[in-house]
Amino acid sequence: MSTHDSTTQVDADPDNWRELITVNPDGLIPVIVQEVTTREVLMMAWMDTEAIERSLSTGAAVYWSRSRQEYWVKGETSGHTQKVISLSLDCDADALLMEVEQTGPACHTQTPTCFTGRTISAN
Amino acid sequence: MSTHDSTTQVDADPDNWRELITVNPDGLIPVIVQEVTTREVLMMAWMDTEAIERSLSTGAAVYWSRSRQEYWVKGETSGHTQKVISLSLDCDADALLMEVEQTGPACHTQTPTCFTGRTISAN
Repeated sequence: MSTHDSTTQVDADPDNWRELITVNPDGLIPVIVQEVTTREVLMMAWMDTEAIERSLSTGAAVYWSRSRQEYWVKGETSGHTQKVISLSLDCDADALLMEVEQTGPACHTQTPTCFTGRTISAN
Repeated sequence: MSTHDSTTQVDADPDNWRELITVNPDGLIPVIVQEVTTREVLMMAWMDTEAIERSLSTGAAVYWSRSRQEYWVKGETSGHTQKVISLSLDCDADALLMEVEQTGPACHTQTPTCFTGRTISAN
């Protein structure tokens, strides 16, 4: 029994990521954002192919805002920018991991990450 | 301009996470899985409320397999288990971060993580 039934398998440093990438019905792929130095997971966001291209070409993280239905350059208004260090596809091409250099808190609530202090338990 | 228009906001260590949590139309929420010691991001998977409850109560990571449409106890067949250390909700309650102790490679391709060596570039 395989844990993945998908036929897509991503080899090392794929040049053909545009063909491989699997998006959801809205044309989006989830991206996990990790601080390159502290290794903290900062947030999860969504990208379409254009947001990926813009993030890679400009070096500034660009996401698709599902609530506002528009591109969102992280830190454009808050100043809490993210410099793109690397972007990697996962083994079945339906998730991304982006390493960034984060300026200031990553979360709009001013916590360092969007997960900070929000632990849940079985209680 | 806020980066989040959602009315949900998650306060510290929410007891009422079952009411707060936002799932997609399939009843699922994405979960980012991070190794607690190495700080590597291992993989992204999906949980429903039952998978969350089972992960918290058993201490073994349980996901919902979208391809197989069934629960999936990580490592049940491979032996590459994940011991749950903590589970946190993000600020707008639509993503989870789980810290685990990983045994063996996390990826079914035998790479340490599902993202290992799969960097993409603008070229």
